[in-house]
Amino acid sequence: MFQKMLENVRKNCPLIHNITNYVTVNDCANVVLACGASPIMADDKEEVAEITTICAGLNLNIGTLNGRTIEAMLIAGKRANELNHPVVLDPVGAGASKLRTETALKLLKEVRVSVIRGNISEIKTLALGSTTTKGVDADVADKVTEENLDEMLAFAKTFAKKTGAIIAITGAIDIVADDEKAYCIRNGHPMMSSVTGTGCQLSAMTAAFITANPTQMLEATAAAVCMMGYAGEIAYHRLGEMDGNATYRNYVIDVIYKMTPDNLEKGAKYEVR
Amino acid sequence: MFQKMLENVRKNCPLIHNITNYVTVNDCANVVLACGASPIMADDKEEVAEITTICAGLNLNIGTLNGRTIEAMLIAGKRANELNHPVVLDPVGAGASKLRTETALKLLKEVRVSVIRGNISEIKTLALGSTTTKGVDADVADKVTEENLDEMLAFAKTFAKKTGAIIAITGAIDIVADDEKAYCIRNGHPMMSSVTGTGCQLSAMTAAFITANPTQMLEATAAAVCMMGYAGEIAYHRLGEMDGNATYRNYVIDVIYKMTPDNLEKGAKYEVR
Amino acid sequence: MFQKMLENVRKNCPLIHNITNYVTVNDCANVVLACGASPIMADDKEEVAEITTICAGLNLNIGTLNGRTIEAMLIAGKRANELNHPVVLDPVGAGASKLRTETALKLLKEVRVSVIRGNISEIKTLALGSTTTKGVDADVADKVTEENLDEMLAFAKTFAKKTGAIIAITGAIDIVADDEKAYCIRNGHPMMSSVTGTGCQLSAMTAAFITANPTQMLEATAAAVCMMGYAGEIAYHRLGEMDGNATYRNYVIDVIYKMTPDNLEKGAKYEVR
Repeated sequence: MFQKMLENVRKNCPLIHNITNYVTVNDCANVVLACGASPIMADDKEEVAEITTICAGLNLNIGTLNGRTIEAMLIAGKRANELNHPVVLDPVGAGASKLRTETALKLLKEVRVSVIRGNISEIKTLALGSTTTKGVDADVADKVTEENLDEMLAFAKTFAKKTGAIIAITGAIDIVADDEKAYCIRNGHPMMSSVTGTGCQLSAMTAAFITANPTQMLEATAAAVCMMGYAGEIAYHRLGEMDGNATYRNYVIDVIYKMTPDNLEKGAKYEVR
Repeated sequence: MFQKMLENVRKNCPLIHNITNYVTVNDCANVVLACGASPIMADDKEEVAEITTICAGLNLNIGTLNGRTIEAMLIAGKRANELNHPVVLDPVGAGASKLRTETALKLLKEVRVSVIRGNISEIKTLALGSTTTKGVDADVADKVTEENLDEMLAFAKTFAKKTGAIIAITGAIDIVADDEKAYCIRNGHPMMSSVTGTGCQLSAMTAAFITANPTQMLEATAAAVCMMGYAGEIAYHRLGEMDGNATYRNYVIDVIYKMTPDNLEKGAKYEVR
Repeated sequence: MFQKMLENVRKNCPLIHNITNYVTVNDCANVVLACGASPIMADDKEEVAEITTICAGLNLNIGTLNGRTIEAMLIAGKRANELNHPVVLDPVGAGASKLRTETALKLLKEVRVSVIRGNISEIKTLALGSTTTKGVDADVADKVTEENLDEMLAFAKTFAKKTGAIIAITGAIDIVADDEKAYCIRNGHPMMSSVTGTGCQLSAMTAAFITANPTQMLEATAAAVCMMGYAGEIAYHRLGEMDGNATYRNYVIDVIYKMTPDNLEKGAKYEVR
């Protein structure tokens, strides 16, 4: 089934509007291209409504936010809602500062979001109002493990119900849930956390997947999460003795570029709960 | 002849002031270094006039523009004009929003531009006032083909005459024209469109080429366009079975770094019409 | 001894707040991860005090500065001082514009800086009030050579005494000095100057090193400088015939990721004067 999700991205080549941080923006653009979609980045309030209009999906990422871009995100989000375009929210660093937490909550309040994609600390911040945080990385105390998985799945479904959004929590075990159904995904490799922005990349790619598969957004989100993680696995096995995180960064994107729908189908490791 | 153009870049190592989008800025800097010039990026109105002054050429790229950077582009452009420094304008996404279209037109009105480098949709927007657009990519309907090439060459020459600038339209077939003479360039590889910012990179490199060859700007622009496309060809042939767009991105820049004037001369595929 | 410095980075994994330019920010993040620390980038005045608070060290880089980020740097710097967090200042392009020179001087006046890391032209600008400059690169006239080394060491120590900061001047020969003791470092490779931002990367890595080694900041800074230079040497020897500056960029970061404390100890080429 994930096969079909990727096929639709490649076939429809959706244009995705990204308002995203300047740290990982280049990788986000190249990942969107790698999976078969087209990116455009624009963050000024004077143009974002128009840019959202010519696009088919929207990715809002609050890393390196500022007053100017926050306003642009709200305008773009509302315009996407008017047009019924899917919207991904990546609450990078929610919990690390009031500005990030409040901006993410404001976006959730004023914009109908299709998918919220973050690490467990970020999602807990939004769902529970407070949490521990370690900057833009998840706190170890929050980690999703086999032991607390049932609890975490219930948490994700409850938050999905509350927000009306699909909740994608990524980490060693990934969870993709709506209010009724959850995918537990076991793709990925620990080395992915040594590359900046693999989460941002996934959010951008998720926007491409749900835009190309508007009637199956839960499955499309799960497919994107599997694809990112599986790419991390394949790329890891390609590394030579002297390769570190910079080469790994490139290889992950390369794998996404070369991934066939069949490969994705075979490599996806998930169960539905 | 293109040989000489590259030799002059390497010999003079011109310092190029870039006001450019944050998506592809790192690649622009590395490409400018790869071809033998030096980049500096600065976009605040308080400093751009000074930065332009210590540089020898200016590259204005309107991707991810905003009120602050638009003002900086105007100041830098006017200062470059005072100093008789060559100016490249890359109207990224002109046609995709009023802000981009109007900013590009304002820059053309208030700044004497040496080269306008864009895809066909962007150039048509500036020349004809309206067009179709697909975000930052050219619309298929606009495509330069063998069938419409004569018409497109005439279009480019007319727009060159109107603006006083060299017009560089890049795509499957590239056109570099002033009001009298046009180069049709058939270097390049389709995979270049799967890397974000190859157009931005070319604009930055073009600024280096025309700055190092001030008396032969048409030829220098054509040389830069050939060099980018030829690098795309060589880089493509270097790709292994598992390499995708991320590795390709690096290889293109690598080829530019290693390109000798002789190689460029031999690899350039063009005719003058 | 440098062995221990790197071990402490890997063991403590300090979280480093970076306010840095958008040209090289992605490489800065990946280098911080490569050496074993964690980066967070945030530059809005509304959140920088909080972000600095959850971090353990601060890296201020004035490349592509603007009014908004200058204010943020001052707030973050003062907050870091209150918390006794180490602060690195990278005065990118000081001397190239009044805004850069004055911002660097203002930061030095209002913030207690632990390390100033720049090229010789930038450091001379701050120490002597004026200098020649070639954009963001050092001017040849300023170059540290075997002939003027004693004089340069004295200059660095004097400036260290004046500012209370460790002075790290990088170039063909690197100098790392406090008011009493100086390391002359002969690691590095000329090709590093063909990659944009190796200086920025070093500043970010230096912040990680001094944060993880708060009682030995001089040695920690020297260790970071050796590590960057030695990585440049190893990466250079890994280059194949077709590899240029883009692959080199990746290889340098890869080497940092793979560097063991033992390797660093063995490869560091320095004398104390």
